[in-house]
Order: sequence, then structure tokens, then C-alpha cells
Amino acid sequence: MIKTIFFEDNKVKYIDQTLLPLEYKVVSCSDVKKLEVAIKTLAIRGAPAIGVAGAYGIVLAALSYKGKDKGEFFNVILEGEKIKNARPTAVNLMWAVERMMGFFETIKHLKIEEIKKELISEAERIREEDAEINRKMGQHGHPLISTGDGVLTHCNAGALATSEYGTALGVIRAAVDAGKKIRVYSDETRPLLQGARLTTWELKEDDIPVTLICDNMAGISMRRGLIQKVIVGADRIAMNGDTANKIGTYQVAVLAKENNVPFYVAAPISTFDPKAKTGDDIPIEERNKDEVTHIGGKRIATEGIDVFNPAFDVTPAKYISGIITERGVLRAPYKKSIKKLFD
Amino acid sequence: MIKTIFFEDNKVKYIDQTLLPLEYKVVSCSDVKKLEVAIKTLAIRGAPAIGVAGAYGIVLAALSYKGKDKGEFFNVILEGEKIKNARPTAVNLMWAVERMMGFFETIKHLKIEEIKKELISEAERIREEDAEINRKMGQHGHPLISTGDGVLTHCNAGALATSEYGTALGVIRAAVDAGKKIRVYSDETRPLLQGARLTTWELKEDDIPVTLICDNMAGISMRRGLIQKVIVGADRIAMNGDTANKIGTYQVAVLAKENNVPFYVAAPISTFDPKAKTGDDIPIEERNKDEVTHIGGKRIATEGIDVFNPAFDVTPAKYISGIITERGVLRAPYKKSIKKLFD
Repeated sequence: MIKTIFFEDNKVKYIDQTLLPLEYKVVSCSDVKKLEVAIKTLAIRGAPAIGVAGAYGIVLAALSYKGKDKGEFFNVILEGEKIKNARPTAVNLMWAVERMMGFFETIKHLKIEEIKKELISEAERIREEDAEINRKMGQHGHPLISTGDGVLTHCNAGALATSEYGTALGVIRAAVDAGKKIRVYSDETRPLLQGARLTTWELKEDDIPVTLICDNMAGISMRRGLIQKVIVGADRIAMNGDTANKIGTYQVAVLAKENNVPFYVAAPISTFDPKAKTGDDIPIEERNKDEVTHIGGKRIATEGIDVFNPAFDVTPAKYISGIITERGVLRAPYKKSIKKLFD
Repeated sequence: MIKTIFFEDNKVKYIDQTLLPLEYKVVSCSDVKKLEVAIKTLAIRGAPAIGVAGAYGIVLAALSYKGKDKGEFFNVILEGEKIKNARPTAVNLMWAVERMMGFFETIKHLKIEEIKKELISEAERIREEDAEINRKMGQHGHPLISTGDGVLTHCNAGALATSEYGTALGVIRAAVDAGKKIRVYSDETRPLLQGARLTTWELKEDDIPVTLICDNMAGISMRRGLIQKVIVGADRIAMNGDTANKIGTYQVAVLAKENNVPFYVAAPISTFDPKAKTGDDIPIEERNKDEVTHIGGKRIATEGIDVFNPAFDVTPAKYISGIITERGVLRAPYKKSIKKLFD
């Protein structure tokens, strides 16, 4: 089983996803600032996984303090909290760090060493809950998939995007575990090729049949009848169901609608943002133009041109056939079904 | 001015488009078999350009015969005719070679040296007509573009896809020449990156503002109001207006419709295939999986996975706002407007 991020020997260990599929390497990290860089450079990526990383970041900050002054200790933890701003779109990162800080408020009266221990326990709970939630999503979601289906996914919402098992790929794993014969179609997902590099890698590890396509081949694949379902993950979901996910997801949703293919989102409840009424309230990260103009350090585009490189887009709720959560599959009208979830 | 392919000193000279934008190199070729390889490997690409190359191929075959036996000479030309099968989707290649062979039938009574001379003249007419046609399309098409427009294009339907000036980019050049201030958005166009490599290169050469995006960013660009028009080229157009063009074009058309952005095709009349009633009659080339799994010779995807790599797709006529030809802009119903063109 692929373990994307975990805690061992007072260190955070994670698979460096910038190296896959050419190299599989587990990195040990004991510095919250280095962990923040790992999130920024996408060595750790995927909304639930960077949530877990954020929680571990608070732990690393706490463990880094070797003194005995509680005031100093608290300041070090507050400094570590900044990891929640490492990336702006996925709400799970803020959610996990805020949960850690809320928990920290309740244990401030304890001794420093006890606080450290308790923070480790809370971060481990977040990690374990994430793994558990993914399996529950799989159970709720896999009845949507039938034997013979071609299932298109975009980016990587798999084990590598979570602590383990995956959201969208968790549903696919659950369908396979239930004995269904399916084939996954993986969009390569430019510019950083998470589909080509990560989704195909982890599906191949699990012997699940997978066909790689370029992002611009999703349409012809649907028109040719190769695709019966689409399942993607999410980085943030607004209270009306509008869903931010990896750039290109919106296009896949439009094509799915046009070709009468159901389009599902699989995401834990921590992905919903009660402060975002609609997709317009979700900040969209724009990244460096080199990600588009270079591949593997090599220039592929003309020098000196302009580049637009948004890392995410918003899929309006009207394109979404269902949102698979750990508490069941939400259906339209989403305003109502999401409100019910939070009440 | 960019001259993509031309005839000089009894040789075909062409820009090797596999090397752009990193290297600009004009290759000389005097062997029809080598010219065929140049078409297959996309050193020469773009429907009108490979049409011109096909015509020159017949010339190179003829010139390669140094003997005095007319029967042998004719056999060499018939052997050269095979260049028309170098790629299956763009009909211009077949069209140009068939025009050369039809012309050859009418001059068979001449002496060998005269036939060679006449074949050169006919191929040069095809090249010159292509350049002229592109300028006419520009004149008919540019009134569709307004100052302030963001114009999205897919792949390269520019000077590099024709003898010179371009089809879709010819319309854009004509708009700029008419004093309109516009910005071009160029889809990078995976897998072979004709947008990132070629379209941005030739627009930058002409100082036309261009922004590069990944193919999966066309949707967000439209939703954000960056795109007011889409113009693409075509590899083959059926008699009902269904249009085969570079893979991904269909998706752009669906997104344009969903976002109320007009979607135009610019193509010479030689792109229409009277034998194709609908898009279903157009053969779609599938290419090697390495084009998807490797970039610049370097592996980017997991080893041992399946790949689907269609080089073209068909955009149904219902998504097309107009087809810009050298004789004006065709509008729906296309069955009628195309029939009128051929009557």
C-alpha cells in the first residue's frame, strides 16, 4: 500500500512526488520551514495530503523547541502556523492547521513535553481519519461505477493526494475491490503532469488497467464511447456546490455534460468551505510561467512570450452529478444537501 | 516573412518544424522518399503545407529520373505518387498530388525534359495559389475580429502550416494589418506542442501579442472573459461542415458554445472533401504512444501503461459559427452553403 505521508521517529516522512515516476524516494523532514517548501514545490500535493502535512507542520514546530519557557514555546508554534498559507486554494490545509491550533488552545495548560505529545496524537488522528474517510468515500461511491465502465479522472486524486487510498481513486479502488472490471482513463494534466506521472504510477502499482491521454483527448474519448463516468477530486467546495479543482476540471465537466456522461466529485467534508458561498469566493492560485514553458528543465516554448498559468479552476455546481463524501453522495440542489450536511 | 516551403535550385527547401523554436533550420531535399519522411515526422506539417510538399514530391520524383525511356520515367512518377499516403487525415495532401497527376496526364505527350519543366510550373502554381488564397481568407475573415478581442487558436494554422501567411493566423495577420489591436491566446497543443513551439514563434516574429496557455486552460480563459473569438484551421471538412482538425479542437468548440464565444474555421476550399458526407467519413490518424509518454526524448509518464493518441478529432458542424474560405465566409446550414460552393 502506498503511504504518501506519515510520522515516524519524530520526523515527517513523505514520498517526493516531483521525482515520480522516474524515482521513488521517501524524504525525512524535521523542519516546518522545509515542509512548507515541500508543499509549495508540490513534493507533497493533493488537498487532503497537504492538510495532513499542515498538521504535521505544527508538530515539527513544537518539537523544534528545546527550551523550557512556555511563552517562547507558544511563539514557535504560532510561527509554525504560517504553513497554512503555503498554498491558497485547497481549504484542507487551512482546515487541518486550524484544527491543530484549536486543539492546542485546549491543552495550553499542560507541560511543554505533554503538549508536544498531545499535538503528535492530534496530527496522527487527522492522518488516520483521512485514511478512514477515504475508505468510507469508496464504499459510498463505488455503487456509481459498473463493470465495463471506462472511468475518466483528471490530475491525481489518489493515494498520493491523501495520506493513503485516495478520494477519486479511492472510489475506483473500492469498485475494483468489489470485483468490478473497469478501465481508468487518466488525463495527463498539464502543466505538471500529475496524471501522467502519479495517477498512472499508482494505478499500475495496484494492477488497475489505465490508459493515458492528453488533456485535449478527453472530448474524443467521450464521443467515441470510451468513457462512462468521470470522477475527480476537489481542492475546495463552496456552499452552493461550485468546486475548485486542478486546472482543466471545468472543461472535463462541460464535455461530460455535452456527452451525457455523469461527472462526480469525491471529497472529504473538510474540503467544503463554509465561508465560500459560491465559486467566486475561492481564490485561484496562479503559478510561475516556467511550469508551462519548460518540461524537466528544458525549454519547450518560444522565449519572451506571455503565459497564463492558473493552477485551478472552478466547476459550477450545475455540471456536477453528485459529490461523494464520507457521509454519502450529495445530490443537487447542493445548497440544500450541503446545508443539511453542516446542520 | 516566413517561407515554410519553396522550390529552389531543383530542390525543395523547408523549415524543419521539429526543431523550432530552439533552432531555425532550412533543409534542402532532392529525394521524394526523404520528403515523405519529413511529412511523416512532422518536419513539414499543416494541411496546406503538406499539400504543397506533396506537389513538390511529384516534381522530385520526375527530376530524379536521368534516363530517356518514357515508360521508365512514368513509372518513377507513379512511384512518387505514393507520397499522398504519408498522412491520412489532411485531404489537401491527396488533393494536391491528385491535381499534379491529373495535370501530368495532360502533358504525357511532351518530351521528358518538357514534362519535368511543366510539373515544376504546376507545383509552383499550387504553392503560389496557396499563398494567394491565404491572403484572400484574411480579407474575408478579418472583419469577424474587432479591436480589443482576445482570439484563441489551437495548434498552428499559421505561415508554418501553409506555404506562407497562414489560414487561421492569416486571418489574425489581416486583422492586425488592418490596424486592430488584439491579443492571441495559443493553446500549447499536446502532444507535439505546435502551439507552444510554432504559433508563439511565428506570432512573436511578427510582433503580434500572444499568451501561451495549456490546452486545459481554454475553459477558464473563456469563463474569465479573456476570449472573444476562436479561430482554428482544418485538415478535412465534410460536405455537412463537420471539420477534422488537430486533436483538442472539438473540446475548444464545445467550450466556445458553452461560453457564447464564436468559433470559426479558416480553410481553403481544397480542404473540403466531396467524398466525405459527414465527419464519420474522415479517417483519424492514431500516432505512436511515445509522443505522449516522452517529451524531448525524456520519459514523463509511467512505463508500461496504455496510451490513446489520436492526432485529430472531428468538430460537428453545429459548433461552428462560420467557415472562412478564399471565396467568403460560409454559414450554417453548411450542407447548403458548401453545396453552393461546389456547384
